[in-house]
Amino acid sequence: MVDVRQDTSAHSLHQEEYAATLASILEARARIQPYAHVTPVLTCSSIDAEVGRNLHFKCENFQKSGAFKFRGACNAVFSLTEETAKKGVVTHSSGNHAAGLALAAQIRGIPAHIVLPKNAPACKIANVRRYGGSVVTCEPTMESREQTAKKVQDKTGAVFISSSSDERVMSGQGTVAVEFLEQVHSLDAIFTPISGGGLTAGVALASKALKPTIKIFAAEPLGADDAAQSKATGRIVTLSQVNTIADGLRTSSLGALNWPVVRDLVEEVITVSEPEIVHAMRLCYSRLKIVVEPSAAVGLAAVLSQRFQENPHHLNCINIGVVLSGGNVDLDALWSSISQSIQ
Amino acid sequence: MVDVRQDTSAHSLHQEEYAATLASILEARARIQPYAHVTPVLTCSSIDAEVGRNLHFKCENFQKSGAFKFRGACNAVFSLTEETAKKGVVTHSSGNHAAGLALAAQIRGIPAHIVLPKNAPACKIANVRRYGGSVVTCEPTMESREQTAKKVQDKTGAVFISSSSDERVMSGQGTVAVEFLEQVHSLDAIFTPISGGGLTAGVALASKALKPTIKIFAAEPLGADDAAQSKATGRIVTLSQVNTIADGLRTSSLGALNWPVVRDLVEEVITVSEPEIVHAMRLCYSRLKIVVEPSAAVGLAAVLSQRFQENPHHLNCINIGVVLSGGNVDLDALWSSISQSIQ
Repeated sequence: MVDVRQDTSAHSLHQEEYAATLASILEARARIQPYAHVTPVLTCSSIDAEVGRNLHFKCENFQKSGAFKFRGACNAVFSLTEETAKKGVVTHSSGNHAAGLALAAQIRGIPAHIVLPKNAPACKIANVRRYGGSVVTCEPTMESREQTAKKVQDKTGAVFISSSSDERVMSGQGTVAVEFLEQVHSLDAIFTPISGGGLTAGVALASKALKPTIKIFAAEPLGADDAAQSKATGRIVTLSQVNTIADGLRTSSLGALNWPVVRDLVEEVITVSEPEIVHAMRLCYSRLKIVVEPSAAVGLAAVLSQRFQENPHHLNCINIGVVLSGGNVDLDALWSSISQSIQ
Repeated sequence: MVDVRQDTSAHSLHQEEYAATLASILEARARIQPYAHVTPVLTCSSIDAEVGRNLHFKCENFQKSGAFKFRGACNAVFSLTEETAKKGVVTHSSGNHAAGLALAAQIRGIPAHIVLPKNAPACKIANVRRYGGSVVTCEPTMESREQTAKKVQDKTGAVFISSSSDERVMSGQGTVAVEFLEQVHSLDAIFTPISGGGLTAGVALASKALKPTIKIFAAEPLGADDAAQSKATGRIVTLSQVNTIADGLRTSSLGALNWPVVRDLVEEVITVSEPEIVHAMRLCYSRLKIVVEPSAAVGLAAVLSQRFQENPHHLNCINIGVVLSGGNVDLDALWSSISQSIQ
């Protein structure tokens, strides 16, 4: 049984090399506990039968604001001093970090300025507004996002909270793994989707500290495979363009603070095709009966992939944890069709 | 705190009048415990804020076979003697009882003959086949369903298990309420969808025995409002036709064994329109992030209805339990649209 209260100094992970540690992750857990959900873990015997392994799904689509991003944002917002906090926070984000940050700021009672690319899904923009965030739209390029956020920052004095490359954010995301290992002691491996790398780095740091034998896999769309390329070449690779249905994974490079963790502690970055993502998404809806966004299904797609299934080194990964990262997705096509059917 | 191990003979409910009792429901619970999921209860602060009450959603869409129906079917199948069981079971059902019975029979290792109306959703037919049920299709009328089932019964000697009007089935469905009251002690009311009445009757019997002050509401589509008409006239009303998107609630009358319970223990049958059902369904997807079938959303639609919200007698129903009955729904329109988007 995993005991998260153990003396973390005893671990041989040299965690001082990384921006976050098990200690900072456990602090984050205590800090966000009054506000965040402990999300449930679901299992499905019919999927297990098909895969030949025992899958455990950590449902971060049920997290506040609809995605794990609330954890990191909440930890960052509640880490600020009163003095700093009152000027508010600012970020640029493809959507879920934006909503998470807006909600965390709303709970603390401070302003949140959110720079959103104009092609963000409508439901994600609506979430930001529902949580009282003040939305500034920009072009869907990293340059435009960064410039626009800088302008807001200069004007308001708000603190910039990166969507992934931030110790407080990384520590917050790591709380997913602390919970997960308490809920399922037997995990041999955990799969997370990877974009900026905050979730993967936080989960890897917490998991390896609590259970050194565990394997951490990152899953990425082929059309935005910067993490896989980075892992292959040993340095951060930045893509000039990305193309995937997984809107939460469209960033072009890993965050600088997350990269060393991904480099050292992640077993493998597994890339999956768009049809593989849609197939995995469909399994979540039809078998698990849950709503996930495309980005959330990428981890399951990687577990189902030939590359993982047929790798003899991974045959001992029997109990597999899959982080379903979020559930913010526009289902307009579904509602149009259903509304027509009742006319 | 509710203690389900209390002496059930002390209750003043005169449960001997009804086909099931708290005792038979607790027996059912022990019988199905090795096979059925204890389904989670979800909450959603944004829906609560809109409704002005605290809603607790009992997620039977996560139950084995995708609906609460597995509970009753499993209790029935495992109540049979070895001698009787080996000839198999037969039923007619619009889908979820069929799948639940097929799965329960598969677990016990006996044949299941399933008579399905030919307009049953494809996913429900697929579920029956996945669980090894032998499918016989019929016309979508009660007469055709009953005649076809009788033929199978005569030919095979299989035991007929009604989808709702059966003591074993009613007791199995009642286990929903026993679990629910253990998970949320503070419930003032429980809403269930109503069709044949097995779920409503089982939930009412268990709930009133465990917590006599609780109010039980049944929710029904306007296009299949036989229970509301029965409640209003004081006798079982049979409809000549039904028309609703809620395919699980298309039966034309209450089961004879369930009627006395609905008559005596159900506070009110609230009817809802088709657009109200779709709106509630959409809230489940967009806020709770779960997949429910139209029938499952009818309880939430009733909670949201003016008729309930504006009734001064129900102002004291603050903590409300809503049974989300199942998640077996064809989402083809969604998958077509998503598949096109990645071409």
